[in-house]
Amino acid sequence: MKKLNIQLLLTGDELMSGDVLDTNSCMMADILKQKGLVFNRKVTVGDNLELLVQEIEHLSQDSDVLIINGGLGPTIDDKTAEALALVVQQPLEENPKALSQLKKWCESRGYELNGPNRKQALLPKGVDILHNPTGSAPGFSINHNNCLIMCTPGVPSEVKSMLQESIMPVLDNINPGAFTQVIRFQVFGMGESSMQKTITEALPDWPDNIELGFRAAFPQVEVKLTVHDKQAAQALPHWQTQVEKLLGAHIIGEGDTQLPQLLVSLLQEQGSQLTLAESCTGGLIAAKVTSVSGSSQVFEGGFVSYSNNIKMSLLDVTENSLNEHGAVSEPVVQEMAEGARKITNAKWSLAVSGIAGPDGGSPEKPVGTVWLAWGQKDNMKTQKLFYPSSREYFQEFVACAALDLLRRELLGIKEKPFYFTKK
Amino acid sequence: MKKLNIQLLLTGDELMSGDVLDTNSCMMADILKQKGLVFNRKVTVGDNLELLVQEIEHLSQDSDVLIINGGLGPTIDDKTAEALALVVQQPLEENPKALSQLKKWCESRGYELNGPNRKQALLPKGVDILHNPTGSAPGFSINHNNCLIMCTPGVPSEVKSMLQESIMPVLDNINPGAFTQVIRFQVFGMGESSMQKTITEALPDWPDNIELGFRAAFPQVEVKLTVHDKQAAQALPHWQTQVEKLLGAHIIGEGDTQLPQLLVSLLQEQGSQLTLAESCTGGLIAAKVTSVSGSSQVFEGGFVSYSNNIKMSLLDVTENSLNEHGAVSEPVVQEMAEGARKITNAKWSLAVSGIAGPDGGSPEKPVGTVWLAWGQKDNMKTQKLFYPSSREYFQEFVACAALDLLRRELLGIKEKPFYFTKK
Repeated sequence: MKKLNIQLLLTGDELMSGDVLDTNSCMMADILKQKGLVFNRKVTVGDNLELLVQEIEHLSQDSDVLIINGGLGPTIDDKTAEALALVVQQPLEENPKALSQLKKWCESRGYELNGPNRKQALLPKGVDILHNPTGSAPGFSINHNNCLIMCTPGVPSEVKSMLQESIMPVLDNINPGAFTQVIRFQVFGMGESSMQKTITEALPDWPDNIELGFRAAFPQVEVKLTVHDKQAAQALPHWQTQVEKLLGAHIIGEGDTQLPQLLVSLLQEQGSQLTLAESCTGGLIAAKVTSVSGSSQVFEGGFVSYSNNIKMSLLDVTENSLNEHGAVSEPVVQEMAEGARKITNAKWSLAVSGIAGPDGGSPEKPVGTVWLAWGQKDNMKTQKLFYPSSREYFQEFVACAALDLLRRELLGIKEKPFYFTKK
Repeated sequence: MKKLNIQLLLTGDELMSGDVLDTNSCMMADILKQKGLVFNRKVTVGDNLELLVQEIEHLSQDSDVLIINGGLGPTIDDKTAEALALVVQQPLEENPKALSQLKKWCESRGYELNGPNRKQALLPKGVDILHNPTGSAPGFSINHNNCLIMCTPGVPSEVKSMLQESIMPVLDNINPGAFTQVIRFQVFGMGESSMQKTITEALPDWPDNIELGFRAAFPQVEVKLTVHDKQAAQALPHWQTQVEKLLGAHIIGEGDTQLPQLLVSLLQEQGSQLTLAESCTGGLIAAKVTSVSGSSQVFEGGFVSYSNNIKMSLLDVTENSLNEHGAVSEPVVQEMAEGARKITNAKWSLAVSGIAGPDGGSPEKPVGTVWLAWGQKDNMKTQKLFYPSSREYFQEFVACAALDLLRRELLGIKEKPFYFTKK
């Protein structure tokens, strides 16, 4: 079967100037890959009408499908519709379907449709509208040079949902019989290279027709097994089991499982509540928990106890512990967790205190040192971790490690995580 | 003066598969920009000889300079030299200068030059060698179709130093007197299309030689004025002032200014402290403040008071206010802010209570409704906002609006923000 030749044209001055990293094409390629498809060529140009026209003409000549990304916004530097109109030699006209989508979108947000917004409905005559499930700019498609040209918005969340919901079904239709099976799971607490090494050493006879892939989306890593033929698909469960055994409880779940969602679900199932006492993460753990819809069932409140004063006055941390052991110590995180638990009456409590840096470190407690306490009344566990990094990465890792430790506790996992063994 | 037309060809299967983000082209564009140069077009293809040959031929036909990035390594999927040899119709031969560079590099690291490494010296006859200050793969250049083709390695650190030390001097030589001046500032609380409309309407005679650009990095938007000649640069301050007048206090600062950093600096300058009582943002405002290094000077602690119980028991919100007006109401956020202020003794206090959704809305208080209170003792201001959106975007917007309101208060700004007027 002839493989579908798909090309990608990205547009945006910000992609040419070095101001913005192109993350869209990577995400789009990843979605295509799940159906065994791949971009043959990517071309990026600025918001330049002449270049856009030239590229649409050129790329459509030797591809089956051309996806154009960007340039659909309301401002004058958005030129995709204008360029496409010139290529297909059709006038721009207000597309009723696009206009009605735009109006609906504005209404749902209580906005009035203004002039620049209305420009987004000005499209080449004869296009079909591609539904935009998450944003205002409608996508659109048209045939030219025997190539199906599909225009998508540049906002990452919008192009992602449009690709998944509106474009992939079209590609499936013109590329039937392609076979791909993908198993994805999410791992926390083990790096890409450690996993690769573990798997390669334990399974030297890994089959060629099963692709093993890793994708780091800090601090989680996605592990992916992909096959492109039905024979390999039969062997897939066997190899999946092998990998799962090797990675053990570092696997937090299938698909897109994220630690905050998972933890909220586990607490909901148990019908129990959590409280938090955060120092170095400064509210980040609470923000992660409350980013989950329905978290109010399991989380009534928490504390950001950044200073020693507040640790004492709010959470009853003792002056003695602070003076003798310092704010980043086992007794202090224990008292923080216990104090928060008592005030809120939550069953589960979690506390962190550490040195996020770049300042505040000492030879005994360098930047990257953190103590965690988690558990319930009369059964608080503690652990010291060391994660020297940028402030941002440290806070992100510690917040997720805290959620992971509580996940392990809620699931009764005895096995120690890999990140305990690293010094 | 004719502008130098520079194009970039990137090669690597990993750039097409969605596994690896292309960070090189962004970094390279940033180095070029410092000399007023910009890539006219970027093309990315996999490690495919036929496509590489086709692209080198095509791109060299309409550019002054073609930089090729990647495909210089020692393995069989590195095909740049082979493709270039086919394009310029010269045989591949062992280049003595490249070989001596490779030998020197290996010696300095105590390696012996092995077969795959030696392949890196096999280059098209007639190329000039570009020095690689940090790695083993020599770069090389040759003229074809009146275009200077320069081949660079894919390793980010290697291409960076090669570009700075070996390529920029060449470009300087063929493009003397290039000129670019850029003014960037950050805006919060006004969308791209509203700004565009405001500026276009008020300044219909905007000059062609000053580029006006917007970049939305939710929830802030960057506004950029760019000129490419010295005459336009003289007019730049005038137009900058016009834009600044129109956008007023929506401009939060120059360059990369971010609200959390700015707010922490303002509080540091005043030597005053802030506390927070968060309901619908669930700790996100605290996390933003504490993401800033040095925030401990201005922030001792805060509260995530998610449930009514916690609002009452922790912050002394009255049962009466909750029963009569509901958790999302002016009296309740006022009491929350006042309660947090009393407990922590901070000068400034900020409270938010709203409906992030997707559930929990009602006809009177739909999803997206939020009350904010901010200020100091005996002088608390309040405001209701309506921002129906996804839970994630709502929380992000509300957290930043809260920081913005406090910024306005600290700076004594009387002008009302644009987001107050939207219903």
